[in-house]
Amino acid sequence: MDNLINFIETAIQEGKFAKVREEIIQLNVVDIAQLLDDLDEEKTLVIFRLLPKEISVEIFSYISTEQQQFIIESITDKEIKHILDNLFMDDTVDILEELPANVVKKVLKNASEDKRKLINQFLQYPDDSAGSLMTIEYVDLKKEMTVKQAIERIQKTGVDKETIDICYVMNNYRKLEGIIHLRTLILSDSNIIVADIMDTNFISCDTHMDQEEVGNLFRKYGLLAMPVVDKENRLVGIITFDDIIDIIEQENTEDFQVMAAMEPSETEYLKTDVKTLAKNRVVWLLILMISATFTGGIIKKYESILASVVILASYIPMLMDSAGNAGSQSSTMIIRGLALGDIQLRDLSKVIWKEFRIGIIIGITMALVNTARIYILDGVGIWVGLTVSISLFITIVLAKVVGGSLPMIAKKLRLDPAIMAGPMITTIVDAVALLVYFRLATFILGL
Amino acid sequence: MDNLINFIETAIQEGKFAKVREEIIQLNVVDIAQLLDDLDEEKTLVIFRLLPKEISVEIFSYISTEQQQFIIESITDKEIKHILDNLFMDDTVDILEELPANVVKKVLKNASEDKRKLINQFLQYPDDSAGSLMTIEYVDLKKEMTVKQAIERIQKTGVDKETIDICYVMNNYRKLEGIIHLRTLILSDSNIIVADIMDTNFISCDTHMDQEEVGNLFRKYGLLAMPVVDKENRLVGIITFDDIIDIIEQENTEDFQVMAAMEPSETEYLKTDVKTLAKNRVVWLLILMISATFTGGIIKKYESILASVVILASYIPMLMDSAGNAGSQSSTMIIRGLALGDIQLRDLSKVIWKEFRIGIIIGITMALVNTARIYILDGVGIWVGLTVSISLFITIVLAKVVGGSLPMIAKKLRLDPAIMAGPMITTIVDAVALLVYFRLATFILGL
Repeated sequence: MDNLINFIETAIQEGKFAKVREEIIQLNVVDIAQLLDDLDEEKTLVIFRLLPKEISVEIFSYISTEQQQFIIESITDKEIKHILDNLFMDDTVDILEELPANVVKKVLKNASEDKRKLINQFLQYPDDSAGSLMTIEYVDLKKEMTVKQAIERIQKTGVDKETIDICYVMNNYRKLEGIIHLRTLILSDSNIIVADIMDTNFISCDTHMDQEEVGNLFRKYGLLAMPVVDKENRLVGIITFDDIIDIIEQENTEDFQVMAAMEPSETEYLKTDVKTLAKNRVVWLLILMISATFTGGIIKKYESILASVVILASYIPMLMDSAGNAGSQSSTMIIRGLALGDIQLRDLSKVIWKEFRIGIIIGITMALVNTARIYILDGVGIWVGLTVSISLFITIVLAKVVGGSLPMIAKKLRLDPAIMAGPMITTIVDAVALLVYFRLATFILGL
Repeated sequence: MDNLINFIETAIQEGKFAKVREEIIQLNVVDIAQLLDDLDEEKTLVIFRLLPKEISVEIFSYISTEQQQFIIESITDKEIKHILDNLFMDDTVDILEELPANVVKKVLKNASEDKRKLINQFLQYPDDSAGSLMTIEYVDLKKEMTVKQAIERIQKTGVDKETIDICYVMNNYRKLEGIIHLRTLILSDSNIIVADIMDTNFISCDTHMDQEEVGNLFRKYGLLAMPVVDKENRLVGIITFDDIIDIIEQENTEDFQVMAAMEPSETEYLKTDVKTLAKNRVVWLLILMISATFTGGIIKKYESILASVVILASYIPMLMDSAGNAGSQSSTMIIRGLALGDIQLRDLSKVIWKEFRIGIIIGITMALVNTARIYILDGVGIWVGLTVSISLFITIVLAKVVGGSLPMIAKKLRLDPAIMAGPMITTIVDAVALLVYFRLATFILGL
């Protein structure tokens, strides 16, 4: 790749444009876009104009927002119109959402009245909704068509469509009556009527469905595309599988970030500046730091115990870490199950009962190992050992139940369950662990 | 759904099979399989035999392993043969991988010699490899065919293929020379030669590519299917997008689990028994507990300091939690970036430098807020406050650098980077935090 970049930079400087074109045109459009990412904007513009128009339009939807902006600001109105006419609606909307207002204005100026209305309507769908993912370039058929007529219509209109692998059968009021795979059409006799072979039992969604749910439907049913309909069951757009893989990874990235106590961000790590990364992280760190004051307060309250049996302090990290880890395990399983739809809110009591039993098994195991370790390695008194091990057992059981239930309670309160992951759970169960520990110490050691 | 189950159970008991069939046949096969999950095995078998054979074969690949086993043990050799003949190879292999040996034997007994050989070959591909995902039901074309001939071949052979949306153009030695979308064929003039419109610059993989990498290629290039080739570039199978969405979520689930210190498992939470769940979690908890001994040891070593300034103990939870959280944030970002291919091993120094600067910004912010908090709320001496805040600053910077670099070092050592997530990072940076804290206390407070 680095060699290719050097070659292209030199060739452009030397004006050997035919060679540049020849070299680049062999690549996949995704790879071309990646290549342009490493070139400066002037050279990107040169290449953008060197390539055949149908390829450059496709590349345009893959390059960075900065480069899109530079290109739009540099090209003529006619060129902008050409891009607009050839981009799919979903890509158009994605691009416009990121660009600054004055650039969007320049773009929309070149759109026809109808198209501008449509774009504005699409821009209004919420960011994470099915509406923001869909596009309008689909093939529409009528149910009274024969297979032959349907294929002819596909051949006539298909070239501008995002997909022709699935076609949509509508009545005169644009109500969706069925879908049909191109596969079915090709493999059927040409005189058969579309209505007789179309699939009327299809999966669809409305414009407001959350994209995570859309992704789960694609996964569950192995869909290639999904129709989006309005309340009257009129087809307003389709969502295709290639966008869904991106969405699924985006949703997962978001969960990973929230679960590690960060503001979610869609930008790649290496492409995000230090200030933004710091800003995304510091808020939750501060919240959790302040919350830990509470845990510190517990230690302060029992200061006298620590002062008389200082050795107790040395078990605090082990207790806190074990509690946090045990709780995080449970909350991770539940958050993941909720995200994939494997766990429903009505399963709350099942989850609590399951985590309680898991907690008992793990708690006993860990308490036993811990007792052995203390006995062999530390050589502390039996009562201190007992205090630590019983605390560990109780803490683990509580951590499991708390870790399992908090994500579900968060979801019930319409919060993101992923908030109730490791960091938050750790802060909560740390306090619980210390309380249990000092209470038991007071009791067992008679302090 | 519950109503439907009741209806079906009653109808089967009353022998109203036609009604059951009529009701079920309207559903999507995925939903039928889900429905069967809630019925006992006898009733599943009844429904399995009631449905048209092409539907029951499809359902067979969706139901649970237990039910598959029961059905195979209950049906005739002829029925098994029918299933085998109509299942796609990838589903066959998936099913056989889960079934007990004696059941597999019963199945293979009904396969032809050739098919048995092929199945055994497929069963040998490693579990997470491209080989284990691929199937062999693809359409093969020749490059000298016209579009018309190609479509005729698709019509003749397509019905048994997993996909006909993409076809594979091979030479006489089964070497893959190009791929062509059905879309391209349908939209092209019928006299054009396939060689002139096929895509020779396609993305492919070999049988040993890891499934995570396969998923990343599908995502990057928006693929519908990918050819799998051997060393001589001969086509051995294809992977289709519907399997990939599952794989992507599976890989993500695995990362979530490993990052929360659990053994990864593919079984859904609610379908896993308590003993297995406990077993998957306890090993890492024990390892981390034992590791925390080290952290406890540090406290023990500085016992005399704690004994003389007991208030220092009350800041330990805040310090430990902040360090752990700060480190987990960084490691999560890096683990995710590595998984998606956004971060490469060669970026190590970039990452360290970035995390260092983020650490400085966050460290200063947190130290300032902490100083204010201690000053306003706790009313401790200025030197204790200074000790805590400077420790916090140093700890955050170190945690960021450690959290950012350990996942990359793990990957360099060919370990799963996800191991270096929250729990492990917390254990490591906790020790660092305490060391810094006590050293500073000794120095600043002159203990």
